[in-house]
Amino acid sequence: MDTPVVHRRHFLIGAAGVAVASTVPGMGGLAFAQEAIGTQAPTTPLPDYASWKKPEAMIVHTELTLETRRPFIGTSSVVPSNILFVRNNLEPPDSAIVADADAWEVAFEGVAQPRTMTVRELKQLGIATVPTVLQCSGNGRGLFDHEASGSPWLTGAAGCVVWSGVPLRAVVDALGGVAEGARFVTNTGGEVIPEGIDANEVLVERSVPIENVDTIILAWEMNGEPVPLAHGGPLRVIVPGYYGVNNVKYVKRIAFTEAESEADIQQTGYRVRPVGESGAPDQPSMWQMKVKSWVTHPVVETPSGPIQIHGVAFGGINPVQRVEVSTDDGQSWQEAQLLDPDLGRYAWRSFVLPVELPSGTYSITSRATDSEGNVQEQTTEPNHRGYDYSGWDRLAVEVTVL
Amino acid sequence: MDTPVVHRRHFLIGAAGVAVASTVPGMGGLAFAQEAIGTQAPTTPLPDYASWKKPEAMIVHTELTLETRRPFIGTSSVVPSNILFVRNNLEPPDSAIVADADAWEVAFEGVAQPRTMTVRELKQLGIATVPTVLQCSGNGRGLFDHEASGSPWLTGAAGCVVWSGVPLRAVVDALGGVAEGARFVTNTGGEVIPEGIDANEVLVERSVPIENVDTIILAWEMNGEPVPLAHGGPLRVIVPGYYGVNNVKYVKRIAFTEAESEADIQQTGYRVRPVGESGAPDQPSMWQMKVKSWVTHPVVETPSGPIQIHGVAFGGINPVQRVEVSTDDGQSWQEAQLLDPDLGRYAWRSFVLPVELPSGTYSITSRATDSEGNVQEQTTEPNHRGYDYSGWDRLAVEVTVL
Repeated sequence: MDTPVVHRRHFLIGAAGVAVASTVPGMGGLAFAQEAIGTQAPTTPLPDYASWKKPEAMIVHTELTLETRRPFIGTSSVVPSNILFVRNNLEPPDSAIVADADAWEVAFEGVAQPRTMTVRELKQLGIATVPTVLQCSGNGRGLFDHEASGSPWLTGAAGCVVWSGVPLRAVVDALGGVAEGARFVTNTGGEVIPEGIDANEVLVERSVPIENVDTIILAWEMNGEPVPLAHGGPLRVIVPGYYGVNNVKYVKRIAFTEAESEADIQQTGYRVRPVGESGAPDQPSMWQMKVKSWVTHPVVETPSGPIQIHGVAFGGINPVQRVEVSTDDGQSWQEAQLLDPDLGRYAWRSFVLPVELPSGTYSITSRATDSEGNVQEQTTEPNHRGYDYSGWDRLAVEVTVL
Repeated sequence: MDTPVVHRRHFLIGAAGVAVASTVPGMGGLAFAQEAIGTQAPTTPLPDYASWKKPEAMIVHTELTLETRRPFIGTSSVVPSNILFVRNNLEPPDSAIVADADAWEVAFEGVAQPRTMTVRELKQLGIATVPTVLQCSGNGRGLFDHEASGSPWLTGAAGCVVWSGVPLRAVVDALGGVAEGARFVTNTGGEVIPEGIDANEVLVERSVPIENVDTIILAWEMNGEPVPLAHGGPLRVIVPGYYGVNNVKYVKRIAFTEAESEADIQQTGYRVRPVGESGAPDQPSMWQMKVKSWVTHPVVETPSGPIQIHGVAFGGINPVQRVEVSTDDGQSWQEAQLLDPDLGRYAWRSFVLPVELPSGTYSITSRATDSEGNVQEQTTEPNHRGYDYSGWDRLAVEVTVL
């Protein structure tokens, strides 16, 4: 059979843990595949704060960016904490803050009765549990052709996890309601700001539209355990359906504000714009996620006979309605089965399609549609920072059926 | 206020990891509480095959029985693998079997075309994902008054986890269907049988009614990772809604049989009978679980003010319909809220009830009702082996509101 030729750039992880582009046809695909399945030992050791991760499942891009290798994602909907990706904008704070998690303090501002509350107090106000997809804005950056700064994530800067905490609405109600004129929820991370620089240059402070007040939870539990430091413990803001950066870690201040944060990360960072343009506040912010899916098995080669193609799909703020799978580079599509359990609108859903393929090489990919009829795009237009490549074209895997 | 006096026996874990009954009123409650919250360091180290568990969360009864301390269960529905209880009937096999999981072989008998299949082959036949409550038959044994042999589990020989694997139905269909006359699915564990003894004395082989062929899955994945050795990897039989013992680990043989297994574990073990009687095949087998719930927070003491009482509830083969909570030893009840996500009929559901209690001591307990109207019992009649204490009376916690 004809092997579909897929033009794309692939990455090898070099000795220093730095991504190196490979443009050799064929070789690129193989390198991509080997890197993805973890046949190479990690080239950089896990950082101390994440030393409890499963090393063979992780690509260590830098000390602050750890990716989950594609085929380590299973079909159980929930991604276990020990293989979940990590992306920190700054060094995490000292681990002492999770040793006495209930004592962590958060300042609430822009409410009728502003005050500081401890996690211990927040735990008295209410409980909600919500599974969400956590996805870095730069997930898929490695699939763009242009050189965008940041880690060259493939698919593994994403995972679906279960959060428990207090609904922000319950806290706001306890504090007398939101101050008049507020249009944003502005959340500040508890990272230590290095001395001698303008705090706004590095401060992790993100604003999201105030409508999210009814879905945000302040989470002290992830996947049934206290939120680990690597994932934002003692307390993390969870904005369901929004990119990871909005889910501020070690949150120390929650403010209802009239304007967006003055921090660079809000004003000019995480802004979608053409390649070569500078970031500016009038460009779209990386808030709500797009509909997206990808295949997690098979990814390299598989015996002939029956094959269960499976993967994950999500719709950002909308539930996934359907997933189609193509084994011929998008020329034809078959409807996949969505697997139970359905963890809710903000979670991802596993899908499976049983096929029988003769020996050969196939470009296998998936295309999700959400409940509003939004269809996963075929290709993602380049954007300066290489945010969220969601096109089913380059999310495809080249699989050899033996 | 009056402190309700709860007559019950409590356990201290002694230096040898052996449970010691405490009958000192007051002291018993305190010991129970301290033991439950994990203020005591583990007295027995974790066994090698489970060394990756979180030590402070586990009560090590023996090398083969590890219990989750009650307040380590959160509100996220899924119990993370590193705090899930362990109960093995025999030493687990060598860990080499999980290192090459796909090569593990299972013999299928009592089908039209009997044969042996590898996990690799099973993975080609289909995929289903099902969250289930895994609960040891002896969970709650420590709450009975009589001395029943076995570990004195409190509430922590139970957890809710997500399994992925192939539906047994898909395998049976691939093998030409079930042989005529079969009434049971009989599953044999892959433990090494010590030499010089009658295999039936120790063989882990359990039969369940054949109706379960449509719900059983053969799981290679638990909570999104390959099933660890401690939990039955490479392949475990999952019989949703059934006690743990039926969920045979390292399964090496799956047979459709006319009669139940000849192994003692089926014939005389796991049979419910009055105290003092021997086990016999005409007594009820520990198959389907009962409706049950318990409070996981607060368990010892809590500051006054608003309190979020939370816990877990399940209905065996039926979904939980409602949970009520009492703070006065069962004299009055209030309806609790069932938390999302709903992971399906075989999972447990977290519940929460916000209350305000003045300073004092309270007996707090919960009572679940399943979709068929079955109500959790008030007390559990003694049975010889101390199986599944489910009464809301002794599952209560004594809590001091400061």
